[in-house]
Amino acid sequence: MNFASDNVSPFCPEVLEALAQESKSNAPAYGSDDLSQQLDAAFSDLFDKEVAVIPVATGTAANCISLSALVSPYGGVICHHEAHINEDESTGVAFFTGGAKLLPMDGPTAKLEATELDAFIAGQVDRGVHSVSPECVAITQATELGTVYALSEVTAIGEVCKNRGLRLFMDGARFANAVAHLGCHPADITWKAGVDALSFGATKNGAMAVDAIVLFDTSLKGRIEQARKRSGHLHSKHRYLATQLLAYVKNDVWLKNAGHANQAAQALSDLLTARGAELAHSADGNELFVKLDTDLAAKLRAAGLMFHAWPSLGKDVYRFVAAWNTDIGQITEMNTTLG
Amino acid sequence: MNFASDNVSPFCPEVLEALAQESKSNAPAYGSDDLSQQLDAAFSDLFDKEVAVIPVATGTAANCISLSALVSPYGGVICHHEAHINEDESTGVAFFTGGAKLLPMDGPTAKLEATELDAFIAGQVDRGVHSVSPECVAITQATELGTVYALSEVTAIGEVCKNRGLRLFMDGARFANAVAHLGCHPADITWKAGVDALSFGATKNGAMAVDAIVLFDTSLKGRIEQARKRSGHLHSKHRYLATQLLAYVKNDVWLKNAGHANQAAQALSDLLTARGAELAHSADGNELFVKLDTDLAAKLRAAGLMFHAWPSLGKDVYRFVAAWNTDIGQITEMNTTLG
Amino acid sequence: MNFASDNVSPFCPEVLEALAQESKSNAPAYGSDDLSQQLDAAFSDLFDKEVAVIPVATGTAANCISLSALVSPYGGVICHHEAHINEDESTGVAFFTGGAKLLPMDGPTAKLEATELDAFIAGQVDRGVHSVSPECVAITQATELGTVYALSEVTAIGEVCKNRGLRLFMDGARFANAVAHLGCHPADITWKAGVDALSFGATKNGAMAVDAIVLFDTSLKGRIEQARKRSGHLHSKHRYLATQLLAYVKNDVWLKNAGHANQAAQALSDLLTARGAELAHSADGNELFVKLDTDLAAKLRAAGLMFHAWPSLGKDVYRFVAAWNTDIGQITEMNTTLG
Amino acid sequence: MNFASDNVSPFCPEVLEALAQESKSNAPAYGSDDLSQQLDAAFSDLFDKEVAVIPVATGTAANCISLSALVSPYGGVICHHEAHINEDESTGVAFFTGGAKLLPMDGPTAKLEATELDAFIAGQVDRGVHSVSPECVAITQATELGTVYALSEVTAIGEVCKNRGLRLFMDGARFANAVAHLGCHPADITWKAGVDALSFGATKNGAMAVDAIVLFDTSLKGRIEQARKRSGHLHSKHRYLATQLLAYVKNDVWLKNAGHANQAAQALSDLLTARGAELAHSADGNELFVKLDTDLAAKLRAAGLMFHAWPSLGKDVYRFVAAWNTDIGQITEMNTTLG
Repeated sequence: MNFASDNVSPFCPEVLEALAQESKSNAPAYGSDDLSQQLDAAFSDLFDKEVAVIPVATGTAANCISLSALVSPYGGVICHHEAHINEDESTGVAFFTGGAKLLPMDGPTAKLEATELDAFIAGQVDRGVHSVSPECVAITQATELGTVYALSEVTAIGEVCKNRGLRLFMDGARFANAVAHLGCHPADITWKAGVDALSFGATKNGAMAVDAIVLFDTSLKGRIEQARKRSGHLHSKHRYLATQLLAYVKNDVWLKNAGHANQAAQALSDLLTARGAELAHSADGNELFVKLDTDLAAKLRAAGLMFHAWPSLGKDVYRFVAAWNTDIGQITEMNTTLG
Repeated sequence: MNFASDNVSPFCPEVLEALAQESKSNAPAYGSDDLSQQLDAAFSDLFDKEVAVIPVATGTAANCISLSALVSPYGGVICHHEAHINEDESTGVAFFTGGAKLLPMDGPTAKLEATELDAFIAGQVDRGVHSVSPECVAITQATELGTVYALSEVTAIGEVCKNRGLRLFMDGARFANAVAHLGCHPADITWKAGVDALSFGATKNGAMAVDAIVLFDTSLKGRIEQARKRSGHLHSKHRYLATQLLAYVKNDVWLKNAGHANQAAQALSDLLTARGAELAHSADGNELFVKLDTDLAAKLRAAGLMFHAWPSLGKDVYRFVAAWNTDIGQITEMNTTLG
Repeated sequence: MNFASDNVSPFCPEVLEALAQESKSNAPAYGSDDLSQQLDAAFSDLFDKEVAVIPVATGTAANCISLSALVSPYGGVICHHEAHINEDESTGVAFFTGGAKLLPMDGPTAKLEATELDAFIAGQVDRGVHSVSPECVAITQATELGTVYALSEVTAIGEVCKNRGLRLFMDGARFANAVAHLGCHPADITWKAGVDALSFGATKNGAMAVDAIVLFDTSLKGRIEQARKRSGHLHSKHRYLATQLLAYVKNDVWLKNAGHANQAAQALSDLLTARGAELAHSADGNELFVKLDTDLAAKLRAAGLMFHAWPSLGKDVYRFVAAWNTDIGQITEMNTTLG
Repeated sequence: MNFASDNVSPFCPEVLEALAQESKSNAPAYGSDDLSQQLDAAFSDLFDKEVAVIPVATGTAANCISLSALVSPYGGVICHHEAHINEDESTGVAFFTGGAKLLPMDGPTAKLEATELDAFIAGQVDRGVHSVSPECVAITQATELGTVYALSEVTAIGEVCKNRGLRLFMDGARFANAVAHLGCHPADITWKAGVDALSFGATKNGAMAVDAIVLFDTSLKGRIEQARKRSGHLHSKHRYLATQLLAYVKNDVWLKNAGHANQAAQALSDLLTARGAELAHSADGNELFVKLDTDLAAKLRAAGLMFHAWPSLGKDVYRFVAAWNTDIGQITEMNTTLG
């Protein structure tokens, strides 16, 4: 079984069905088609608020294009050291923003804490044009370490941002896993908590290649669309981005997929801990970070499990990622296989 | 019938089949999968030379990322005024290159002519750091006005570039239509003629969303891959770019599709000219630019044809674009319909 | 005599006196010193309006930093083909603005004409995010070809900008020569005519190294100051920029210097035309563009005159630039020297 | 007495003399004048190696332009957290490099240590295009905390860079103070130790506004000159940058000035420590960081001393900076004044 990443999963049947359906006829290009025109309404329903939706094909594009409208070329973006934008997106943020600087800080399990954040902001001595002033805070939900911010935690961060006059951005590459875990309304964890813009991830959770920039502040739309075009992220056959997204949110496919992945992670967690593995920290979504002794690690690999070592959390720590298509039955059967 | 653009066409059955096939199983992310690993070999076969292939989802990305490795931030890119990079990609070239300047020039039917090009380069007075020195020439094959450079024309341009020490880039958004028209080997019109890098278009001609950067100078690969990642154009489920491309070039689907589109354009040309329309210039590929009198234009719209006015070529000039899925029978039937 | 450029002139005694005076004592850095603090008031007096002044050491910096606050990274700046920002500042505009595109147009003697400008703007077909929308017009006063916009000409351009919703920027590298020629109040030719920001040149006309960004729209100040710092144009010993500027505007030194240069150009014009030279166009400021026959050109060079050929205006056309320190008596004496 | 910064000092008599001398006559612009042409030779003598010298008006420009030729837009620059490029130059590095990322690390008294540096580089897990690879190390000599790298320390860092394939840049805003302290040949601490490019500071130590980019790798010259022009840092009256620099290095004025400043700092150190103040760390150059009790601090201020609190080193720590013009006699007299 492949637990290397949720990126190894294919897209889901609902997406295939939608794509196949859209392969039969012509339609206007660059977002003028009917499906693309439905996006704003579909997501406004989903979030119980009028939003603007700009789909792109990758999470890096969604994150960096969003930030380009939230921060000036001489501003700073506070994020966790572990943040994808800090660790995994090359120099994307500086490229898209025209030079804005990441201001990474720490926090347990890849989460920013509101009190620490407030102190961090206070500690950024403003020396006018010489220093870089924070203009935006970026949090990841679920985090890069598989934890999920509680409602109260996001809300507290939103309060800090509001008081300090900073924008709040949410990287939701695994937003579905977070919502499935929390069981909350998507509105609660986003705009109601102060989030200005969200990367609503779909690729990892059943789409082929689409993440949506969801703007709760719709005044950002024009700049985002300009930034998308000039960076080559406006698809000519835009309907194929739209149809993936619509299929993904229709009938709560996104929550079904994420719920499944979370459950699979839980099943795997049970399997591993029963064999003496120890969770590095709580596994809220579809990612597990576990400490394995050498024997167990070897045994799992021998049984065909694929997963990565995660040395930044310790030398015996490994990451396992479940996906929408992980076979839970197969995990259960491993109880037998592993003996 | 929709002749507004080839972008209105869906993707073709071979691509659907390939995508569907790849929706059944897991595979490594970010290009480590088997299909992605086959790209270099497949295109090296196609071009009869060892090439490096970097797929992206849009033509603007393919063009601008390519140019970012061919020109310095203070250099110039010579292109035709009508070039897509000059007219249709916002400020993409400056964004990706860090500031390089487009140096547009004229030429009949959107083509650069070698002699004029040479004179244009000679006329760029080099005033050292004050002026912008041309470092690259970009041509579009087939052109934005539906014409196709003859082999001799590209070769002559290649010679100029070589003599002047400039790079040569080819925007091949409709490369397939050009090759289908010329009946030549793809090598003849590219690297053998001096082209350093090519945007090998697939999206307009049967793919869903993929164009390939084909590097004849493979030393550019590293920089291109860095530029792709930081601009958010590296897909996590990279195999879906690869599988589209492989299906597109397998069994010459690309040439079959393009040949069909060219033929459809020809059938439409026959239909229109028989009714008194006049071609603005030769229609070599899948695009027609025709002068229609008001009555005929109205009649065609009444019959359900969709097409754009093209005022830059004159007030009665219109553009019609055929695609891989244009129903040629339906065009023929219009002879009856139109009376 | 050196007529190669006004850049070959040294700085004037008033500037030396001011610098020497400021070399005697300590003062706060980065613009907190008394002299720097006087700039806004001095220029508000000069322009009869509350303005913000940000001094930098070069004209390219003044122009490009100004434009960075007047245009978005995906916008366009309309200028004349001959404009210094288009011809002589490398890729500076794209660099500072993050990618904005110059949209050059023609016009007699390097001037934009309001009617043509309006038509040019109207002709920029707005294709949304695909095309580049003009956001700013940049004119040079006096122009690169030594002519000066009349009040009515600038006012008409200002009207066009206002009606079209565009910003108006003035490159005033030789602003003093223009004002000296027009004999108008500086306000008339700038903010009263619709100019948002001005590069107020001093370097060519008697300063050592300082041009001032003068903001008639003071709301731009914050962004300009940020752009200045991050581009390395904020001087630590800022008072030396300030003191040059203050000495330059005090007692109308700027107008005295420019008036002298204009008069010298006129004397040279008289000398040359008396000998059969023909002005390419009116010489309004301190620059002459004249047609010389081969004999006269040779004779002048033999007599020690330095000047540049200006082939873009014709093969026998030459440029002569007078400066604040040009010896008019020596020009008169040449009547004898040349025989 | 003003110990707020060395930026509060004026320029020195030798610089005034040179500027005044150059105010008397015309000379070619943009670096074609005789003085500018002498720079390479003068600095090649100084460094006992053929170097290329590109003068600019500010330290930020010297640093950022240098780095733009040493690192790619997707690369990283390792520096100390306290580095001027990290703390005091806004987003300059990202702006000039097109997006390169600063990778700050710690070390005592603002110094990088070779062993720690090597471990830091080793710890930068190379995840290909996803992560940012260090391409350059930037050190400051003397450091931002007033310490000076020993020859052996720079040499060890140079070794690490060489072994790891990284460039080495030195921010020498206070290079003179470092050389004066070490008593070494400038070559020993730069190119002989592996430094590729140096910002040779002059502004803080007696010039008006000039720092020199000194390239020990002269192959970088072309790119540096292009970067200088497009960023508006090429002065038209370039000779005034040149003449400052030539006056600054002639007759060892730079070392005389720096030696004086270092000595003044020492005198002040003696004065303060005799009164119970404690140095935060060794004061190698012209900067002191001292712990003062509240009474002493108040007493010094009452006596007219100006200096800044330096809270990052502790709540009772203050910075005092001496300059080339600090009156040492006046410091001695304070022994009496303070009682």
